[in-house]
Amino acid sequence: MSFGIGIIGAGVMGADHARTIFRDVAGAHVAALSDIDAARAAAVGGETGARRVDTDAHVVIADPGVDAVLIASPDATHAELVLACLAAGKPVLCEKPLAATAEACLRIVAAEAALGRTLVQVGFMRRFDPAYVEMKAALDAGALGAPLVLHCVHRNVSAPVWFEAMMAITNAAVHEIDIARWLLGAEIVRAQVVRSRTARAADPILLVLETDRGPLIDIEVFVSAQYGYDVRGELVCERGTVSLAPPVATDLRHAGAQSFRFAADWRPRFADAYRLELQSWVRGLATGRYEGASARDGYAATAIAEACVRSLDTGAPVDIRLADDPQS
Amino acid sequence: MSFGIGIIGAGVMGADHARTIFRDVAGAHVAALSDIDAARAAAVGGETGARRVDTDAHVVIADPGVDAVLIASPDATHAELVLACLAAGKPVLCEKPLAATAEACLRIVAAEAALGRTLVQVGFMRRFDPAYVEMKAALDAGALGAPLVLHCVHRNVSAPVWFEAMMAITNAAVHEIDIARWLLGAEIVRAQVVRSRTARAADPILLVLETDRGPLIDIEVFVSAQYGYDVRGELVCERGTVSLAPPVATDLRHAGAQSFRFAADWRPRFADAYRLELQSWVRGLATGRYEGASARDGYAATAIAEACVRSLDTGAPVDIRLADDPQS
Amino acid sequence: MSFGIGIIGAGVMGADHARTIFRDVAGAHVAALSDIDAARAAAVGGETGARRVDTDAHVVIADPGVDAVLIASPDATHAELVLACLAAGKPVLCEKPLAATAEACLRIVAAEAALGRTLVQVGFMRRFDPAYVEMKAALDAGALGAPLVLHCVHRNVSAPVWFEAMMAITNAAVHEIDIARWLLGAEIVRAQVVRSRTARAADPILLVLETDRGPLIDIEVFVSAQYGYDVRGELVCERGTVSLAPPVATDLRHAGAQSFRFAADWRPRFADAYRLELQSWVRGLATGRYEGASARDGYAATAIAEACVRSLDTGAPVDIRLADDPQS
Amino acid sequence: MSFGIGIIGAGVMGADHARTIFRDVAGAHVAALSDIDAARAAAVGGETGARRVDTDAHVVIADPGVDAVLIASPDATHAELVLACLAAGKPVLCEKPLAATAEACLRIVAAEAALGRTLVQVGFMRRFDPAYVEMKAALDAGALGAPLVLHCVHRNVSAPVWFEAMMAITNAAVHEIDIARWLLGAEIVRAQVVRSRTARAADPILLVLETDRGPLIDIEVFVSAQYGYDVRGELVCERGTVSLAPPVATDLRHAGAQSFRFAADWRPRFADAYRLELQSWVRGLATGRYEGASARDGYAATAIAEACVRSLDTGAPVDIRLADDPQS
Repeated sequence: MSFGIGIIGAGVMGADHARTIFRDVAGAHVAALSDIDAARAAAVGGETGARRVDTDAHVVIADPGVDAVLIASPDATHAELVLACLAAGKPVLCEKPLAATAEACLRIVAAEAALGRTLVQVGFMRRFDPAYVEMKAALDAGALGAPLVLHCVHRNVSAPVWFEAMMAITNAAVHEIDIARWLLGAEIVRAQVVRSRTARAADPILLVLETDRGPLIDIEVFVSAQYGYDVRGELVCERGTVSLAPPVATDLRHAGAQSFRFAADWRPRFADAYRLELQSWVRGLATGRYEGASARDGYAATAIAEACVRSLDTGAPVDIRLADDPQS
Repeated sequence: MSFGIGIIGAGVMGADHARTIFRDVAGAHVAALSDIDAARAAAVGGETGARRVDTDAHVVIADPGVDAVLIASPDATHAELVLACLAAGKPVLCEKPLAATAEACLRIVAAEAALGRTLVQVGFMRRFDPAYVEMKAALDAGALGAPLVLHCVHRNVSAPVWFEAMMAITNAAVHEIDIARWLLGAEIVRAQVVRSRTARAADPILLVLETDRGPLIDIEVFVSAQYGYDVRGELVCERGTVSLAPPVATDLRHAGAQSFRFAADWRPRFADAYRLELQSWVRGLATGRYEGASARDGYAATAIAEACVRSLDTGAPVDIRLADDPQS
Repeated sequence: MSFGIGIIGAGVMGADHARTIFRDVAGAHVAALSDIDAARAAAVGGETGARRVDTDAHVVIADPGVDAVLIASPDATHAELVLACLAAGKPVLCEKPLAATAEACLRIVAAEAALGRTLVQVGFMRRFDPAYVEMKAALDAGALGAPLVLHCVHRNVSAPVWFEAMMAITNAAVHEIDIARWLLGAEIVRAQVVRSRTARAADPILLVLETDRGPLIDIEVFVSAQYGYDVRGELVCERGTVSLAPPVATDLRHAGAQSFRFAADWRPRFADAYRLELQSWVRGLATGRYEGASARDGYAATAIAEACVRSLDTGAPVDIRLADDPQS
Repeated sequence: MSFGIGIIGAGVMGADHARTIFRDVAGAHVAALSDIDAARAAAVGGETGARRVDTDAHVVIADPGVDAVLIASPDATHAELVLACLAAGKPVLCEKPLAATAEACLRIVAAEAALGRTLVQVGFMRRFDPAYVEMKAALDAGALGAPLVLHCVHRNVSAPVWFEAMMAITNAAVHEIDIARWLLGAEIVRAQVVRSRTARAADPILLVLETDRGPLIDIEVFVSAQYGYDVRGELVCERGTVSLAPPVATDLRHAGAQSFRFAADWRPRFADAYRLELQSWVRGLATGRYEGASARDGYAATAIAEACVRSLDTGAPVDIRLADDPQS
């Protein structure tokens, strides 16, 4: 049994996903692939064995050989495409964000609830990263006691030229927002963003988040950290802490120093997380039970990021009240 | 040439200092020692070769064999004793805090300024810790660029029963406040303390401090962290970061794990810093130039801690305006 | 396109391989499976989707749905089964050792050479371990200069009751022998085993190996190290060294120490290496080019291990002269 | 009370020792100093407060203000000067080696035994290095069980032009020989040196040592390791191991990597060991009990190094039989 996957978007993420399914995922194959750039669609589709390539995403969704859809097209297209998958009754794994606004996310949540079954998974791949999984297992094992603080650091080498300050939240910190909710099993109810008062240091920013169950979260987002792609996390509990270890396979001693290298961006750092996410999703296609982030999680992440953006703009804390969950 | 040191207070810190001077510091000896507990004074004085012991601190200050005074008596006595040393024209190393209130600190600053020469050093020993010294050297070397954020963690095993929430600031975070000012060469101008909204997690607290030059500071203070005494720091700069490495001499592989142990409290962790602080101070006695924290630094730390306590009480940010420095 | 894999042996390794192919390898499926224990064959075969299960390995080899064979049966059966695969013209991945003796290995090498094409891969999975791959890449990058010494440590928690001293070489050190040859691109020409002169310390033993190109190799094998399964390696070169970093995902701070845990045995440590080995082999089935250890490598590892066993018995160094390679 | 120290030799080590006593050691002062280079003697003596400087070592030994002598002159002069100190009845700390040959060491051992009291300490400073001290404490604590293997690595950046192969043993490995005897409480009874068979890799060499109590020792000596001064050690015991952690105060993240730097030579690496060695020796001057290496230890290290040199020359193992200890 092999599930036919339809991939929408053959940019960096879409092409990576297609190659991962083709090369490294059991029980699935790339059935169809679309991209608005026909040449790119043909190239990636050819490389990954897609039977059909097109410039129209809806052709992929409708293709009878497509059992499930993976959306990796530009953010602005996500909501409409996810709704189309729901209309077609096909499971869909949507790269984050689920939609560009919390409001649009809620429409998806409602549409899925109306169907009465889970079809949507949002691509918060960190939930499958072995280090975060081990962190959660350490917490759940109980010896550390209740969680109290989660410290997060999210650093990129450099920001693209079109980067705006708010994107440090919507593109970067949103991963920490999701992983914090998942780790802590708590909801974020208040957000405050602190930035330096000097123009020079508009980046990094600090986010301080409060949860309904008590644990605090702080996040440094530094999109132009230059030295490397670096994601850190420490979960502080009553009787101990658990931290992400640096992802190091070998240590070098050379030229006066012992060192290990950072990835240049998130792709090598989370390559295994992406593979495990896809493998888990494919397992879920058989069972109808998905381990990844739900549409509701996608809504929450977007809504909380929106609150952080308001705090960034105003400099004041913002209280957060999420819409009720129609599933609960 | 050996300087005669008069030590006031033979509790944990005073006794440690007396032993360090006796055993490990060149160019000085314990000349006299006082403690309100006569037996304790006699015991520590006998062990460290003090010629004179007394229950009256002023006897020590006045002793002609005492070239300089080290104050390690209870906090409430510091201000009065430092002023007595100034009145006697004797150099004095005062354990932190310099005085119980910013206002009292300012009186000392003024008294010293009136004398026209530096006699006061405040015992912020971290400035002599080799790891912090190396961190500052890394910053000053310039390759990392300007500092942007200083992350601090300060964890104790447990708080004494008489511990109040504000003491997490005045006893613990005050060390980070001083080291941040020293590292960054910037003044702290705004403070905010965030605590969990659940009673259970009154500890730890998070401090977010802003400086006049731009860098942000965040500090986790966790006085009942249970697992060990743990002080961490990472200085984030434009082109890289420098972190305190864990103070590890050996790694153990045993019983399923590789591990190293934490100190139970600050004394082993900062034993070398204390020794180097005292050795530096003794060198300063000969030259009149001291490398440690000044009376002004002692005032600033206390004043900023007071602002943090106000923020802890109110939950709101507090702007800080330090008194003008009479020396500058 | 999905290759049908026939698995011989449903013990620990065979079952693990079957599950990995079923769950985590793209482009292949478990077609048939045999074990002398019919119940075990049925259980593992059922779990992994095998169409056919049997107690006779030759039924698996002959099955027309079996495109390639994976041998994970007891060591003593390897040679005969590999020769049967060659006779059937089917690619075969044989768990180490290729055969119980160097002489038997040579018969396989000769049989494969007579066929004129590569069909045999030996399961030295460390060649696919990301850390060893990164070590080799660091060497090949050239900045470190020529290799001079390879230090290896191989520790198991405890030896099974049927363990004999020589098995520390044939079961454990043989992995280091293979990886050293692969890393260094050199042949081992002399071996010496040093053991303690006290009965108590028959374990660990030290192996010192010399190569034709100059680099030295030392290996500690400690089969009852108790604290955990631990494999270390450092490659010392002219201008620097590269070491395997401990495989750590998270660090724990708890109960007075910072720690990370060791695996209990080799399976979690090399789980990813096994998966990558199988995925690489499946790719090789399509191209006829295999990245793993060849039959010749399997012969060399066994012959060198035999020399080490002689040195263990005699206490003297043993010169090694491998048979000529019929392929070269 | 302050002991007057007479220092013989104002080269790198002598000057370092003089400065350490002057700046950082309690209870002692530099009383007199000699060097065959009068200008150097005057410079270092002036800097460190010596009352008397001379070009004649015997003037220092005879000086009535000299309570104890520290010998840091060229190796060839050690034996004669130590004997002169014994003749004068003055305690002496002699830099390693105690004498150029085992035979000459034995004459010192005999001369001291004839006096009936301990006057000689040999400058194997690693016994005072906090990491080695912690390693020994871990062993002595008992939880690890009996020691089985000690792995050592000794790497220098580069060898001076006058360096001969045997000096890798007599100048470098001799430190590991002493520390192994001290850690293990065992005597080395057999030595074998393995070197590469290619001219290119005459350096590094491997030493394999066997002890009377069973533990094995291996030592890599690499005098031109280029990347930094690096001393490693791991003590493998029945139930676990203890390793020297790299001496790291801060970690740098910069330019694509996380790193810490190595010292360029042994002086910064063992600066604290030298200070603690001197402080311990000065305490010993008061009590007559010395914690450092004895004359007997100095003899043993030299005799074992001589055996290693013979093995280096012949390529064969060398059995070692030390002279009986007159003290025991």
